[in-house]
Amino acid sequence: DFQRAISQIQPALGANNDELSSYMGHEMVDYGARYHNLLREGKSFINQITQNERTSLLSVIFHGPSGSGKTALAAMLAAGSDLPFIKMISPQMLVGKHESEKCLKIAKTFDDAYKSPISLVILDDVERLLEYVPIGPRFSNALLQTIQVLVKKPPPAGHRLLVFATGTNEDFLRDCDLLPCFNVNTEVPLLNKAEILQTLSSRGVFDDRALAELDKSIAFDIGMKQLQLITEMALTNSAGGGKTDVATFKAAASDCGYAMLQ
Amino acid sequence: DFQRAISQIQPALGANNDELSSYMGHEMVDYGARYHNLLREGKSFINQITQNERTSLLSVIFHGPSGSGKTALAAMLAAGSDLPFIKMISPQMLVGKHESEKCLKIAKTFDDAYKSPISLVILDDVERLLEYVPIGPRFSNALLQTIQVLVKKPPPAGHRLLVFATGTNEDFLRDCDLLPCFNVNTEVPLLNKAEILQTLSSRGVFDDRALAELDKSIAFDIGMKQLQLITEMALTNSAGGGKTDVATFKAAASDCGYAMLQ
Amino acid sequence: DFQRAISQIQPALGANNDELSSYMGHEMVDYGARYHNLLREGKSFINQITQNERTSLLSVIFHGPSGSGKTALAAMLAAGSDLPFIKMISPQMLVGKHESEKCLKIAKTFDDAYKSPISLVILDDVERLLEYVPIGPRFSNALLQTIQVLVKKPPPAGHRLLVFATGTNEDFLRDCDLLPCFNVNTEVPLLNKAEILQTLSSRGVFDDRALAELDKSIAFDIGMKQLQLITEMALTNSAGGGKTDVATFKAAASDCGYAMLQ
Amino acid sequence: DFQRAISQIQPALGANNDELSSYMGHEMVDYGARYHNLLREGKSFINQITQNERTSLLSVIFHGPSGSGKTALAAMLAAGSDLPFIKMISPQMLVGKHESEKCLKIAKTFDDAYKSPISLVILDDVERLLEYVPIGPRFSNALLQTIQVLVKKPPPAGHRLLVFATGTNEDFLRDCDLLPCFNVNTEVPLLNKAEILQTLSSRGVFDDRALAELDKSIAFDIGMKQLQLITEMALTNSAGGGKTDVATFKAAASDCGYAMLQ
Amino acid sequence: DFQRAISQIQPALGANNDELSSYMGHEMVDYGARYHNLLREGKSFINQITQNERTSLLSVIFHGPSGSGKTALAAMLAAGSDLPFIKMISPQMLVGKHESEKCLKIAKTFDDAYKSPISLVILDDVERLLEYVPIGPRFSNALLQTIQVLVKKPPPAGHRLLVFATGTNEDFLRDCDLLPCFNVNTEVPLLNKAEILQTLSSRGVFDDRALAELDKSIAFDIGMKQLQLITEMALTNSAGGGKTDVATFKAAASDCGYAMLQ
Amino acid sequence: DFQRAISQIQPALGANNDELSSYMGHEMVDYGARYHNLLREGKSFINQITQNERTSLLSVIFHGPSGSGKTALAAMLAAGSDLPFIKMISPQMLVGKHESEKCLKIAKTFDDAYKSPISLVILDDVERLLEYVPIGPRFSNALLQTIQVLVKKPPPAGHRLLVFATGTNEDFLRDCDLLPCFNVNTEVPLLNKAEILQTLSSRGVFDDRALAELDKSIAFDIGMKQLQLITEMALTNSAGGGKTDVATFKAAASDCGYAMLQ
Ligand SMILES: Nc1ncnc2c1ncn2[C@@H]1O[C@H](COP(=O)(O)OP(=O)(O)OP(=O)(O)O)[C@@H](O)[C@H]1O
Ligand SMILES: Nc1ncnc2c1ncn2[C@@H]1O[C@H](COP(=O)(O)OP(=O)(O)OP(=O)(O)O)[C@@H](O)[C@H]1O
Ligand SMILES: Nc1ncnc2c1ncn2[C@@H]1O[C@H](COP(=O)(O)OP(=O)(O)OP(=O)(O)O)[C@@H](O)[C@H]1O
Ligand SMILES: Nc1ncnc2c1ncn2[C@@H]1O[C@H](COP(=O)(O)OP(=O)(O)OP(=O)(O)O)[C@@H](O)[C@H]1O
Ligand SMILES: Nc1ncnc2c1ncn2[C@@H]1O[C@H](COP(=O)(O)OP(=O)(O)OP(=O)(O)O)[C@@H](O)[C@H]1O
Ligand SMILES: Nc1ncnc2c1ncn2[C@@H]1O[C@H](COP(=O)(O)OP(=O)(O)OP(=O)(O)O)[C@@H](O)[C@H]1O
Ligand SMILES: [Mg+2]
Ligand SMILES: [Mg+2]
Ligand SMILES: [Mg+2]
Ligand SMILES: [Mg+2]
Ligand SMILES: [Mg+2]
Ligand SMILES: [Mg+2]
Repeated sequence: DFQRAISQIQPALGANNDELSSYMGHEMVDYGARYHNLLREGKSFINQITQNERTSLLSVIFHGPSGSGKTALAAMLAAGSDLPFIKMISPQMLVGKHESEKCLKIAKTFDDAYKSPISLVILDDVERLLEYVPIGPRFSNALLQTIQVLVKKPPPAGHRLLVFATGTNEDFLRDCDLLPCFNVNTEVPLLNKAEILQTLSSRGVFDDRALAELDKSIAFDIGMKQLQLITEMALTNSAGGGKTDVATFKAAASDCGYAMLQ
Repeated sequence: DFQRAISQIQPALGANNDELSSYMGHEMVDYGARYHNLLREGKSFINQITQNERTSLLSVIFHGPSGSGKTALAAMLAAGSDLPFIKMISPQMLVGKHESEKCLKIAKTFDDAYKSPISLVILDDVERLLEYVPIGPRFSNALLQTIQVLVKKPPPAGHRLLVFATGTNEDFLRDCDLLPCFNVNTEVPLLNKAEILQTLSSRGVFDDRALAELDKSIAFDIGMKQLQLITEMALTNSAGGGKTDVATFKAAASDCGYAMLQ
Repeated sequence: DFQRAISQIQPALGANNDELSSYMGHEMVDYGARYHNLLREGKSFINQITQNERTSLLSVIFHGPSGSGKTALAAMLAAGSDLPFIKMISPQMLVGKHESEKCLKIAKTFDDAYKSPISLVILDDVERLLEYVPIGPRFSNALLQTIQVLVKKPPPAGHRLLVFATGTNEDFLRDCDLLPCFNVNTEVPLLNKAEILQTLSSRGVFDDRALAELDKSIAFDIGMKQLQLITEMALTNSAGGGKTDVATFKAAASDCGYAMLQ
Repeated sequence: DFQRAISQIQPALGANNDELSSYMGHEMVDYGARYHNLLREGKSFINQITQNERTSLLSVIFHGPSGSGKTALAAMLAAGSDLPFIKMISPQMLVGKHESEKCLKIAKTFDDAYKSPISLVILDDVERLLEYVPIGPRFSNALLQTIQVLVKKPPPAGHRLLVFATGTNEDFLRDCDLLPCFNVNTEVPLLNKAEILQTLSSRGVFDDRALAELDKSIAFDIGMKQLQLITEMALTNSAGGGKTDVATFKAAASDCGYAMLQ
Repeated sequence: DFQRAISQIQPALGANNDELSSYMGHEMVDYGARYHNLLREGKSFINQITQNERTSLLSVIFHGPSGSGKTALAAMLAAGSDLPFIKMISPQMLVGKHESEKCLKIAKTFDDAYKSPISLVILDDVERLLEYVPIGPRFSNALLQTIQVLVKKPPPAGHRLLVFATGTNEDFLRDCDLLPCFNVNTEVPLLNKAEILQTLSSRGVFDDRALAELDKSIAFDIGMKQLQLITEMALTNSAGGGKTDVATFKAAASDCGYAMLQ
Repeated sequence: DFQRAISQIQPALGANNDELSSYMGHEMVDYGARYHNLLREGKSFINQITQNERTSLLSVIFHGPSGSGKTALAAMLAAGSDLPFIKMISPQMLVGKHESEKCLKIAKTFDDAYKSPISLVILDDVERLLEYVPIGPRFSNALLQTIQVLVKKPPPAGHRLLVFATGTNEDFLRDCDLLPCFNVNTEVPLLNKAEILQTLSSRGVFDDRALAELDKSIAFDIGMKQLQLITEMALTNSAGGGKTDVATFKAAASDCGYAMLQ
């Protein structure tokens, strides 16, 4: 069950994986059933590649709105696995490089992965890896072709490869024929009101009355990333003592473009 | 007949052709009449180039949806022939190379082929060779022109050439004038329900009752590649003993985007 | 309150920041409540990054019409803070450089910022940084991708980063997916009639009767930059003695494309 | 008359022109009146350039569907002439070269031609020379401009030049302003039923009853190239003895995409 | 008044500015009130930059149809000023240079200007500087970005800069966001009938009767440049003695595309 | 009058100008009033630049359908003038060169022209100089900008420049803003029936009865170039003796795409 999954993951994560943990922020919040489900499904992909001899390649893309927690989820699953080779390819490593350098760097990472008996490669933020912009639309076809081929290429005999990717714009990913290159396609959604309240409650900065009031005035879905920033802005603008109130939270939400009821 | 064809092929394949066999997965499944027909037609192309003196060039394109088995079929036919020169040109060999390098590498392979009295060149996944993307659409015109010319260019006097190609998007291949460069155009289809059941039955992981149940709940066509992955995912998520059940199969199919009835 | 904020800011600004002050013109005019509000909000961003440990990255974009005072505001907030690292990236520094040089220069500035415990980077006039032109529209995708990644990339552990940006064309910034890369999005508006009159009054070149007359004949909103130029043109075309009159002001406004009533 | 023309041509062709003969296949088939007419017209162009002093430049483009016999016709006319300089420029010579190399190579061939008192240059498959693809459409403007100028440029005083070209897509050639650069524009059509039967009859692989049956079941026009391949495929799939039958011919035609009646 | 303005200007102009005078043709014609107004306005810009301490940057664009006299006007104003640094950037200096060379040359001129306490830079024929063509439309974005930034960049503290530009296509200049980069936008119109007659009269090649006749048959507006050419063509085609007649003028006008009444 | 003009021209032309005469074919045919008019107008441009001191630059574009005689006319006018510097810039000189080389070569020719007191530069076939193709449309903007500037740039003080250009597609030349760069715009039309008959009559290969018959069966306008080729083709296909007949002429016209009545 989920509790066991989590307890398995936490040590590995905290123990030996500094870089991955930088993608996970301060801590993963348990916001409910949908989060448990994502964890369970993620673990099953790792099982598949480690336990099934006939599966030499498995590729999964996590997609959803910005801030919904795709990168943190992929990093956490990776950190919680005990695969001998794990590598994150993120746009931040590639800033300012030319298209062809980026292609080579990505291909090099896969080549390294092929040397390990079982490997996990994470392609973080594929729209950014592809240099995608909705106007036009434009993107790097060289990078697209490289990623399409690498995601479908089985590793050499006797080796196994798991590929995780994160992306935002499902329509574009389908239109450019990248989505069907993945075996599995999993959505990471925004938090709904119940999940928002569970998150705020677990942060411990609102008393119960404030939470009841928030229950009435929240009318949006939001990403975990945005929700955490708004909470911190409210705390900074509050009297201190690690507490804040509904009015200050509303003001911070409004500054970030989230209008609350009333 | 088909049995003889298969028996002729298997030894050659197992015996001396490691690289080609990597494109064929664990084993070719006999899923019925349409598969026999593809094998028969494929063998006739090899006969034509080996036995007819007036045929110095024959080019065939296999097209069909992703996962339908085009690459495996072409590799199997090649491995089962006893042509003195066989070469697969696949996008995986060309990853990260520039357009002009790719053109040269492809032209070089044909030049090598011209030196043998009879040769087979396989152009695997032409959309990827052409760096095709539906948006725009875009593709490498340099690669298209190179392939168009090479596919139509007869080998030097006294030499013969068979070209196999695999492709997915028939409309694009017609629109860009590549399809008419081939003498023959053969479709490799998705598996229908009867073919799916024959495949699952031959894998031996369902009992008869489960197969009867599946007969009622399958309402899609699917590629052999996707079908095999779903079966393996179901096995991994099952109790073990090399068996799985309908419910676990349904869940795996659903994770891969195939919704079953009920 | 605002007075304290201003008094805190002025010394720092005058004292040690020559380059920033060059973006602020002769002096900042207090044109009323909306200006106070912009200052207050700006100060809260600086507080957030200096005081909240859980906020390692905060990014804010100020947008509004040309001349509304975005650059001056960002420069003034920066000069009034006591952050150990402050850097303005403006198109003027990048004139005539190639796209890739510009990318490197921008990435280099962020790299420098990461070395300081707390830093502020200002991306001035993002449309110009992106080489944007409405026809097409066209812009540098390399620069867009670079800025998108840098604005969202958290600094290394133990470091904090505040990003200010200024931009004009909100629609384009949204369409190219740059706007959602910022946590906060703040509008800097044109001056309305009341704010124009307060500005003209504080400049001291009209007597009260002239101001009353202007109250009746102004029917446009205008940027602080344009308003100050028109005032100076009127002064130059006047008799001297540091005074001007309504007719001369009207003529100057008309030369600059602002038609007044009557 | 035609018989004399042919007899004049055959010796020259067989005797001294290996490269050209490679473009003509095994032998030219006399398929009737339309073929005689093409030969007569072709001979008249050669007469014009050799016999009329006021004609220093004559350019002819042969266009028609793929396989209709344009290249073979141009090669045969060239081989049957006794012009002192004959050069074929074909896309096969230019495979993998860059646009500018191709331009130079083509210009160089014309320069060589200018050195001979009378020359014939054949531009084979102009769409491929221009790197044309219908999508877009796209093509090399550098190559188009080069060919447009060379086709219209008179040779130096005292020299004469005949240009033959072959092309497929008349609409494109008109739209890109290449067609009007030629003085004469001649169509090479597909074979109609009568011409198909004359061709099959002259090949001697059907008995009279089979030909009568074919007369009823052919309902398409076809290129000589495709017709010959289908005939050879039928022969390979037949019992042997240099004969085939209607059913086997139908099957081969169908594999090549030509459906016959019944 | 205008007379004083002119008298101030003429000496400076004749005295020391050869290059500028080459842009002004033989002499400036006083064609009436609209010309006086352009001169007055132009002088006021020079006053503003020389006399108002708070104006460190003033930018003016003169736009109007080809031949209306924009370049001559800007050159004359420059020659009539006594600014210590005056530089004309014209497309003629940049012929055949690459985009990036042009950018550097323009930026270099502004850099030189920044060294003088007060400077005037003239950007002549901005559409040509931008390599603009209405089809597409196309233009050099690198040059546009360079000019946009330079026109808005204030000179270093203690320096002042006046920028004049000339342009033709107001719509394009607005669409590409160059027009709003200028503080002032002044139209230089074609000559109307009264102005044409005043110009022809001052040239002294028609007698009064001819002028009266022209008054009835002119039904177009025209640029000063075209009007002067037509007059000279008429003179060349006339009997001599420095006189011409209406019929010869009409014929010359018609050759230049200007149809007259009757 | 025209006779004098011609007699003036012929000697100069025959005497000393080999290169120009190569653009004029065997001889210029006097086909009637419209030809006289073109010669008269052309001479007046040469007069204007040689005799009017106030005209330092005059630019004329001759446009009309392919084969109408634009290049021959410009070459003849040049050869018949006694200007000290005459240079033809034709696409044939620039074949295979890169855009920037072409720009430099054109600019160099104008620079050479500026060194002579009076010069004539001919820009032959501007569409080809611009690498124009109607599809897109596409053309070299670098070449367009270069030509636009050079055609409008006055030569240095004390020098005079006449520019002739020839072009075909008036609409494109207007759309790309090249047409208005020329002071004068003159049409060179196809020959109408009367002009065709006068041309054929002067060639002396038809008797009067044949000419009368042709009068009834010609229903097209045609370029002088095409008309002369058809005549020569008819002669080659005739019995000899320097005569041909209507039927043979009709056949040749039809081969060249001109259908005659009956
Ligand atoms: N249960 C959770 N799942 C995911 N993220 C969580 C969870 N709890 C807390 N977080 C935090 O929420 C933030 C999610 O941001 P993350 O960068 O993963 O989003 P993203 O979907 O990758 O966004 P983007 O599309 O902008 O890259 C992280 O800081 C992470 O530490
Ligand atoms: N009878 C069969 N025919 C084809 N493939 C089969 C068959 N039986 C089993 N397979 C397996 O099914 C898979 C088919 O995948 P393959 O890569 O050939 O598909 P594809 O059509 O080339 O897909 P793509 O368009 O994605 O390249 C291979 O792993 C192959 O071993
Ligand atoms: N209260 C104020 N707020 C902003 N600017 C002010 C204020 N008072 C005076 N100014 C002056 O007004 C001018 C505003 O111009 P600024 O360059 O900041 O505008 P901008 O919005 O950045 O315009 P652009 O979009 O063209 O870059 C500056 O010269 C500044 O010194
Ligand atoms: N009478 C004939 N005319 C033309 N070709 C003939 C004739 N008889 C036989 N052939 C053969 O038919 C084939 C015609 O093919 P060819 O390559 O010339 O066609 P094509 O029109 O150039 O096609 P593509 O457009 O594909 O280049 C050749 O192999 C040629 O030898
Ligand atoms: N009052 C006048 N104002 C302007 N130009 C005059 C005047 N009187 C005579 N001219 C002459 O008229 C001509 C105007 O041409 P000018 O090149 O300045 O026009 P332009 O508007 O810059 O045209 P283009 O858009 O083609 O560059 C010059 O030769 C100039 O000497
Ligand atoms: N009166 C004439 N005017 C023009 N050309 C004539 C005349 N008489 C004979 N010719 C001949 O007619 C031909 C006209 O062709 P020319 O190349 O000048 O046409 P063009 O209009 O320049 O065609 P293109 O647009 O294809 O360049 C030349 O060979 C020329 O010698
Ligand atoms: Mg992410
Ligand atoms: Mg495949
Ligand atoms: Mg600004
Ligand atoms: Mg051909
Ligand atoms: Mg001008
Ligand atoms: Mg010409």
